Amino acid sequence: MTNKLAVGATIGILGGGQLGRMMALAAHRLGLKSHIYCPDAQSPAFDVTPLKTVAAYEDIAALSDFAQQVDCVTYEFENVPAATAAAITEVGTNLFPSAKALEISQDRLVEKRFISTVGIEVAPFAKVDSQAELVSAVQKIGLPAVLKTRRFGYDGKGQTMLKTEADIQTAFATIGEQPAILEGFVPFEKEISVIIARDQAGHVAAYDPAENVHKDHILKTSTVPGNITVAQGDTAKSIAEQLIIALDYVGVLGVEFFVVKTENGTQFVVNEIAPRVHNSGHWTEAACLVDQFEQHIRAVAGWDLGSPERHSNVVMENLIGDEITAGMNTTESNAQVHHYGKSEIRAGRKMGHINRIFAKKDAP
Amino acid sequence: MTNKLAVGATIGILGGGQLGRMMALAAHRLGLKSHIYCPDAQSPAFDVTPLKTVAAYEDIAALSDFAQQVDCVTYEFENVPAATAAAITEVGTNLFPSAKALEISQDRLVEKRFISTVGIEVAPFAKVDSQAELVSAVQKIGLPAVLKTRRFGYDGKGQTMLKTEADIQTAFATIGEQPAILEGFVPFEKEISVIIARDQAGHVAAYDPAENVHKDHILKTSTVPGNITVAQGDTAKSIAEQLIIALDYVGVLGVEFFVVKTENGTQFVVNEIAPRVHNSGHWTEAACLVDQFEQHIRAVAGWDLGSPERHSNVVMENLIGDEITAGMNTTESNAQVHHYGKSEIRAGRKMGHINRIFAKKDAP
Repeated sequence: MTNKLAVGATIGILGGGQLGRMMALAAHRLGLKSHIYCPDAQSPAFDVTPLKTVAAYEDIAALSDFAQQVDCVTYEFENVPAATAAAITEVGTNLFPSAKALEISQDRLVEKRFISTVGIEVAPFAKVDSQAELVSAVQKIGLPAVLKTRRFGYDGKGQTMLKTEADIQTAFATIGEQPAILEGFVPFEKEISVIIARDQAGHVAAYDPAENVHKDHILKTSTVPGNITVAQGDTAKSIAEQLIIALDYVGVLGVEFFVVKTENGTQFVVNEIAPRVHNSGHWTEAACLVDQFEQHIRAVAGWDLGSPERHSNVVMENLIGDEITAGMNTTESNAQVHHYGKSEIRAGRKMGHINRIFAKKDAP
Repeated sequence: MTNKLAVGATIGILGGGQLGRMMALAAHRLGLKSHIYCPDAQSPAFDVTPLKTVAAYEDIAALSDFAQQVDCVTYEFENVPAATAAAITEVGTNLFPSAKALEISQDRLVEKRFISTVGIEVAPFAKVDSQAELVSAVQKIGLPAVLKTRRFGYDGKGQTMLKTEADIQTAFATIGEQPAILEGFVPFEKEISVIIARDQAGHVAAYDPAENVHKDHILKTSTVPGNITVAQGDTAKSIAEQLIIALDYVGVLGVEFFVVKTENGTQFVVNEIAPRVHNSGHWTEAACLVDQFEQHIRAVAGWDLGSPERHSNVVMENLIGDEITAGMNTTESNAQVHHYGKSEIRAGRKMGHINRIFAKKDAP
């Protein structure tokens, strides 16, 4: 059953960073309003809409008030607390993607178990709540492996690599002795991601897979098409589709894969899923008529999805820290820049991105 | 000398309609803020930015206050009163395009004289301030001809066609006996327009000409490329370039042409110029990486222009009145829709537009 919002309706957005900002801009192009909820009064998304709430994610009264002022709620980050989600839905306002998607994606252990249950390949993993459990996890999985906190990890934060026996002694302390998961290291050849959307009527639309390159644990570039075959791309899309259907999901979902060469061919191991618009989907802004932000808004608004077709080949480059200055001054004729409006340049901070497109026949 | 604004600066925009709204959205993608000034509190542009002034264009105190809160001022309509423009610049805030561009483009007689002075072809014209002047103007120009008010005409309003002697008796009354201009009817084969931009350093960038079709005096479609030769397109661009330089202009300028078949070839007659982003440039949103709105913001912000290159062929269709409903529900894979967020559908009202793109090799 769909809840089709009329033009002029208001999309509530939890989170005021660049993803919230870009969702708001997309809503505005569709004639919808946006209301940003964020505890940080300096958030960049506050600069693009008159409707805002500055309050903590734990402030149930403020959340309840916000939810009653908007026509549906979505979010830019997967760490929305369960109580926050409940405060929205308790007043009768729809939350998309659902609390279930949050519950699964914000805990790496729950996420891995879920993906496995769907029958999709993940790295070998084991729960680690103590030093003793780490020792037995290493016995089971072997080295090298990566110890990750179950919650609140992003851009390489909250994780540490175990290469030698000595690392076993220090790893659990390194991540702050938090509930964790040990993952077998996947000897991947490349990383790709699929941005996929599902509307309220159950239709699914997947963008072409991007090949992603990280630098210092932060996404540096996404290239479409990646260096994979069409058949491999279709396999990745099909896995993403199985996941989005299993989640009974509404909105845009990011699915990250490790691509592994095996004796029998190529294996696609799901690294993680993100229940939101995704950095590796920013390329859609320049290479598609309907980008991931519009697609997400369409889905949460109860509208039909747009086409994920790509008119051009593209390389998206994140502009990190002071890279933003040169990026904004580009004179390349095939480049489009996007600045997130963050007032202060800081090392490692995502300040904007640049998309460079190429005719489909001239691969980049 | 350029006044290069930093990211985070605020663009002041006079006018809260769809053009102001789309300029604001473009500013936001570049990390700039926007402040809308409009007398109508229900204006659609107010929904996309927290910074606003609701006041009359004659309210000098409010204008002065507005101008001091922003880093430069631009506008979405050519009928900005001279006193309004002066109130902005008197407090030391830059106005782009300049008051000169307004002065010329808001009076059809001044405009025609200016274009002629630059050495560019216009329709035969004569000043009409009275019934007696109309009679002598018709003697000079002949029939058919069009009588237009010198000021405040748009979408066919404030004009009337004279075909027969009888029309001479009624025409001046029909347009309200306002100061007017009689223009000889141009037997055009087609209408085209060039959207051109000039930055503060004097660099110029022209988009490819669009072929425009009007219906009930309102733009219906813009097609790029139009049914003209490359050489003809270059001629039109070159005329637009002469005009924008002669105006010492900063920002995006729309130049409308009649294309006339003559014995010696093709003649380009300039119909009018619009010192602003232009409806016949909305196609750039889908077919270029840098659209006319971003280009305009870049120019007024003192930035370098982006590339006007076109990656696709395109047909832009205005969605007028209740056409918006079907337009927003399109499922075409090559279509992109834009809704202006106007709350009420009214006959003849521009509600949004749809761009359909085609690979360059497959002409639409």
